[in-house]
Amino acid sequence: MSKSSQERSELERRIKKLRRALKKVRLDAMLVFGRENTYYFTGIRCSHSYLFISMSESVFFLDGRYIEVGGENVKHCDVRLMEVASRSFSQWRKENPVERIGFEGATPWSCVLQWKLWLSDLDWVECGDLVQRMRIIKSAGEQKILARSARLNDRIYETVIRLLRPGMTEIDVRNLIRSEVDRAGIEGLSFDPIVASGSMSSRPHYEPGPRPLQKGDLLLIDMGLRMEGYCSDMTRVVALGRRPQSRLVRAYHAVLDCQQRVLKRLKPGLRCSEIDRISRDVLKQHRLARNFTHSLGHGVGLEIHEPPRLSATSPDTLKSGMVVTIEPGVYLPGIGGIRIEDLVVLTPKGCRILSKADKTFRVVPFG
Amino acid sequence: MSKSSQERSELERRIKKLRRALKKVRLDAMLVFGRENTYYFTGIRCSHSYLFISMSESVFFLDGRYIEVGGENVKHCDVRLMEVASRSFSQWRKENPVERIGFEGATPWSCVLQWKLWLSDLDWVECGDLVQRMRIIKSAGEQKILARSARLNDRIYETVIRLLRPGMTEIDVRNLIRSEVDRAGIEGLSFDPIVASGSMSSRPHYEPGPRPLQKGDLLLIDMGLRMEGYCSDMTRVVALGRRPQSRLVRAYHAVLDCQQRVLKRLKPGLRCSEIDRISRDVLKQHRLARNFTHSLGHGVGLEIHEPPRLSATSPDTLKSGMVVTIEPGVYLPGIGGIRIEDLVVLTPKGCRILSKADKTFRVVPFG
Repeated sequence: MSKSSQERSELERRIKKLRRALKKVRLDAMLVFGRENTYYFTGIRCSHSYLFISMSESVFFLDGRYIEVGGENVKHCDVRLMEVASRSFSQWRKENPVERIGFEGATPWSCVLQWKLWLSDLDWVECGDLVQRMRIIKSAGEQKILARSARLNDRIYETVIRLLRPGMTEIDVRNLIRSEVDRAGIEGLSFDPIVASGSMSSRPHYEPGPRPLQKGDLLLIDMGLRMEGYCSDMTRVVALGRRPQSRLVRAYHAVLDCQQRVLKRLKPGLRCSEIDRISRDVLKQHRLARNFTHSLGHGVGLEIHEPPRLSATSPDTLKSGMVVTIEPGVYLPGIGGIRIEDLVVLTPKGCRILSKADKTFRVVPFG
Repeated sequence: MSKSSQERSELERRIKKLRRALKKVRLDAMLVFGRENTYYFTGIRCSHSYLFISMSESVFFLDGRYIEVGGENVKHCDVRLMEVASRSFSQWRKENPVERIGFEGATPWSCVLQWKLWLSDLDWVECGDLVQRMRIIKSAGEQKILARSARLNDRIYETVIRLLRPGMTEIDVRNLIRSEVDRAGIEGLSFDPIVASGSMSSRPHYEPGPRPLQKGDLLLIDMGLRMEGYCSDMTRVVALGRRPQSRLVRAYHAVLDCQQRVLKRLKPGLRCSEIDRISRDVLKQHRLARNFTHSLGHGVGLEIHEPPRLSATSPDTLKSGMVVTIEPGVYLPGIGGIRIEDLVVLTPKGCRILSKADKTFRVVPFG
């Protein structure tokens, strides 16, 4: 359970925005489910809750563990105990006429059936990821939190790089990141860091292993924080103590070239599939397009992966206020991999980079 | 993503057991969804996968990120790439006649609809938590892992108790637990530890705060590990450096009396609601029944909370091989709280306690 610093007025504005979105698709209400979705409207993050939003009311259903915290902190909704409320639904609904109610596709099958049973007179309509997509444009307040999260992530990353020593394993580096994040006194990590050294860096979703770092290794670190619910995400690669083989240095400069050219082109109105294509065109010039085996990036917010996807098949178009990662990568199996990832916010005319750790090719002191 | 040490023969035995369960409810196949459920049958834990099990085949559908690890490690299933497989479903199904296929109620609404579209000729039947309930009886292999997890949890808890010092806050203690777990080189914690001191210990689901520990405080620590996917869970309360007020000492002995009497009675055949009632009867004798505000315990396995519930409304009966927590608590608002929790496995004639940290009333050195 965690609480947001977002002001009540912002939370209320979001509920109003949802109501407008519901009207557009001729829904009278929405059953909001999912930790991030309910947090977005209530400022309270808990494992199991529902938010019922109609044109006239907002009812936050919590179980007994959270009802006290909910009652204390959520003043713009009617907070009710789930177990008790379900018994009085028929009476409650009589007083609040709703005909068509929406729910997201991610809602568990049996939860939908349970609610259909409780409110059986309503017309229940699946509406994809309507709420998740509402979250795609970040407000000024959300952008500030994301920027703070990215800045602290930079600092922790730099601290970790300074503390690298021969004899440390990938797991040691992962643990060092964890303990530095703990010391910072924030909520935590947005995902378990990827720490890959040497040829292991060629595996995009590698888990840290007992391999000791070697002089001359590339070290790839992909890490992010969670602050007030919001995630950051960044990847950097450094060389440990010695310049690696020239093939890897060339790959590094190719990925950096790609990333920087993409960042220059990034602006509202560009299709996400188009920007993904641009990145592949750059790598083609370096004869490395085939080694870029994942998509260019993804949206980041309350979830570490959320819309839009920046990929060849993405249906989305970039808009001001979106926060996305730009993370081209080149992977040479058995040799090593490079990925350079920044968190950026789309501005009216371009983009602003939130993660600022050095990304020039670096050989860091080691041993 | 993590892998299990469970042998292929055990994984195959589980699939056979599922097939028998399916036959009983006249299903020809099951679409297994959910990280823990798919892990249970494949030994591979990843965020998004499906396992299709019919009487003649087991097909594990993975996305591109996991397909390499899946192919390398899962030899008893046909491992397929989700994106490609979905295109050839109609051909595939022609060769494998299935009529009625089950899915769990926890499956997201839109996933079920997607599969219904892919395999539209099948009769899709929701079958509650059929797979999760299969996991309720732990095999000898699973019990061994759970016992190892509980034993290491005891050791880390004792280390943390020895390192308590004046000036530390609850958050510091939480961070100390996290770093000791990291040092142990295991998967991680089964949940974020609850560390509550002084009067804060009266809140069952408290999050550690910046409150410095005080001499004379009660300190409640609720923690558990995750090893090879399996969780442990234990709660202990100690007094820091000085005996606390006698009301709290009396409460401690009442909770311990309750917990020990429950453990003596625990055996297969007893209804979960009955054992919950027994615990409340003991606390009634101490005039503290009203201060026991949650249920007596819950099942533990691949999830930290899983069936059976040990509560007044539980429909379950204890069986040999179940692993549950026994965790009575007494909470005196504004004063402090006591909870004593052990992880136990039901044996043919009683139970065996897996968590062994000292639970006699302890005043530990502090300052």
